[in-house]
Amino acid sequence: MNLGINDEEFLRAEKIPMTKREIRILTLALARVGGAEIIADIGAGTGSLSIEAAKFSPDSNIFAVEKNPDAVELLKQNVKKFSADNVTVIHAEASEALKNFSQIDVALIGGSGGKIEQILDAVNKKLKIDGRIAANFIAIQNLSICLEWLRRHKNYHYEVMQVQVNHLKKIGAYDMAQASNPIYILIAEKLPND
Amino acid sequence: MNLGINDEEFLRAEKIPMTKREIRILTLALARVGGAEIIADIGAGTGSLSIEAAKFSPDSNIFAVEKNPDAVELLKQNVKKFSADNVTVIHAEASEALKNFSQIDVALIGGSGGKIEQILDAVNKKLKIDGRIAANFIAIQNLSICLEWLRRHKNYHYEVMQVQVNHLKKIGAYDMAQASNPIYILIAEKLPND
Amino acid sequence: MNLGINDEEFLRAEKIPMTKREIRILTLALARVGGAEIIADIGAGTGSLSIEAAKFSPDSNIFAVEKNPDAVELLKQNVKKFSADNVTVIHAEASEALKNFSQIDVALIGGSGGKIEQILDAVNKKLKIDGRIAANFIAIQNLSICLEWLRRHKNYHYEVMQVQVNHLKKIGAYDMAQASNPIYILIAEKLPND
Amino acid sequence: MNLGINDEEFLRAEKIPMTKREIRILTLALARVGGAEIIADIGAGTGSLSIEAAKFSPDSNIFAVEKNPDAVELLKQNVKKFSADNVTVIHAEASEALKNFSQIDVALIGGSGGKIEQILDAVNKKLKIDGRIAANFIAIQNLSICLEWLRRHKNYHYEVMQVQVNHLKKIGAYDMAQASNPIYILIAEKLPND
Repeated sequence: MNLGINDEEFLRAEKIPMTKREIRILTLALARVGGAEIIADIGAGTGSLSIEAAKFSPDSNIFAVEKNPDAVELLKQNVKKFSADNVTVIHAEASEALKNFSQIDVALIGGSGGKIEQILDAVNKKLKIDGRIAANFIAIQNLSICLEWLRRHKNYHYEVMQVQVNHLKKIGAYDMAQASNPIYILIAEKLPND
Repeated sequence: MNLGINDEEFLRAEKIPMTKREIRILTLALARVGGAEIIADIGAGTGSLSIEAAKFSPDSNIFAVEKNPDAVELLKQNVKKFSADNVTVIHAEASEALKNFSQIDVALIGGSGGKIEQILDAVNKKLKIDGRIAANFIAIQNLSICLEWLRRHKNYHYEVMQVQVNHLKKIGAYDMAQASNPIYILIAEKLPND
Repeated sequence: MNLGINDEEFLRAEKIPMTKREIRILTLALARVGGAEIIADIGAGTGSLSIEAAKFSPDSNIFAVEKNPDAVELLKQNVKKFSADNVTVIHAEASEALKNFSQIDVALIGGSGGKIEQILDAVNKKLKIDGRIAANFIAIQNLSICLEWLRRHKNYHYEVMQVQVNHLKKIGAYDMAQASNPIYILIAEKLPND
Repeated sequence: MNLGINDEEFLRAEKIPMTKREIRILTLALARVGGAEIIADIGAGTGSLSIEAAKFSPDSNIFAVEKNPDAVELLKQNVKKFSADNVTVIHAEASEALKNFSQIDVALIGGSGGKIEQILDAVNKKLKIDGRIAANFIAIQNLSICLEWLRRHKNYHYEVMQVQVNHLKKIGAYDMAQASNPIYILIAEKLPND
């Protein structure tokens, strides 16, 4: 029931993005993943977030949605490598894939392929009351669209934080800070209707 | 089994430090807290780290060690408020308190009261093989002493990261970043003797 | 001809924002302030950026535009305190004030009062070729609007950076990091027409 | 008299470190470089700090001290490229080179080659009253030694800050933050004897 798989353990490929360890930990903890819930991981990429969720929350059912065929292949290999039996890989556009769900408890949004607004609309239709959206952003534009969307959808409570991690790297007698790119983490919870 | 209690839920007092939510989450996840283990929380302060560990890891036994009487009082109130039955409060100097343990699995070091080196020596005597030290630093001096100590004690594998979190605060139509102080998180694992 | 007035030297008032020393230094250096130029400081607030520019670049003419009457009063006091004779205070809305200029070399945008797009349009009309816009943002929304504006106005070359400064504070035997809020600095240069 | 040469303009070589633009700007501004002063740049590396100082402060005499022969070669090429006539390259160990000065106004310490304490001692002997030491650190160990040295030498007033810059990189329709490693900037001023 541990949280925090080392980044090196995942199979990786160039140009397929991976959510880093500290961001995975914070995203899943703040999304309150942990129970027997339906989780949709949109733009799953390498699959690190899905697999982390699977290991941390063995009673969850995680659906890793990815449209890029190369990423799907890698994703499947990682699911196999980690024996993440509660992860189902879905090769589809996010909005299409979401139509097949009756209800979801948590939507993890790692990648949005330029369609963040459509994804939020599609997620919103299926997200149950008290369900959570947890999104990671590196582009100002996507963060901004998402903030605007949340300000229009008043039935969500949200918080956003920017997290920057600098790892100290041992070089001879020295420990030197090596920066990682800062990530925006957004957590939104769907409130009951009045 | 959730991780990430809101900071506002803890009773607080001026001058008694509190480890913030995101730092608690990362510290406990990276220390691989979660099993049925003995955890010593050194310099427990407000008790937020002990209580977070207690809730996240109900099978652990957590000993919250604190020398400041005011902090001990606050700590007890927080333990009570959260019904954290697996937390035992110990009012003592860290080095003294550690003498009473036969073995510990995890040492969390939040505060060191100017005695980080003695604390590390005392922890080292009781920490079992595969046990972890997880320390949070805000002072360069303590981080530096700890790095030096670890470079002398070659039977530890360690990693250090600096984490900075900026929360977006809603002010009218705007979301504006509000900084939190950066924290160094150190995770050291005791290796088997050759 | 120094750059980097200490923040404490400025008269301040609650709710009137002030650009901090390190951000002033970087903003003015990157805007290549220094010659005999016309500089408009939009949303001048406390006046710290105008006064820093005035001292660093004594041959410049700086026009500090501010609509809030309380800020105007404070601004005037600071100009007097620093004997910044090359600063002219203008009490007006930014877009109105800009109409009176024939041409400007540099526009510094500290505050925008919710009208960033109008300000950019008004600045654009008066900014000469090779002129620079240097803006500081704390709100994601304003940064985002400005990025969009620049992507539409292809005759600007721009760069944006986020700067976060943590000052070490001496507390007894310790030096402890104290965070400042991260600021986005945008520098845009108007290119010659083809 | 501009400050802020673009990093790309310097000739570079692998393994020879370069102080980045924003750090150069802040270091020189906070060291109050600008007058007709003697500046020793210790561990000059690529020479970016020396050359930036030379251009920003044409009346200064800058001595760029470097022990690594490869770096000295690069340094000379950069001095030539920028026609930085007020920069003198000295191929020597810092402590040796400093013996030849009668007095210095500013010591810039970029690299210390594991000898930060000897360098501080040697600088201290030659630094005039009101002179400044400006050092950039990436290793916790060097920062820590320097803080300790300054706490022993009470005739210095010092301040330290950590600066982290994230540049937004344009990738298609997006602006995405790219981290630079955080740098500690230390500024110490030698006070008059009582």
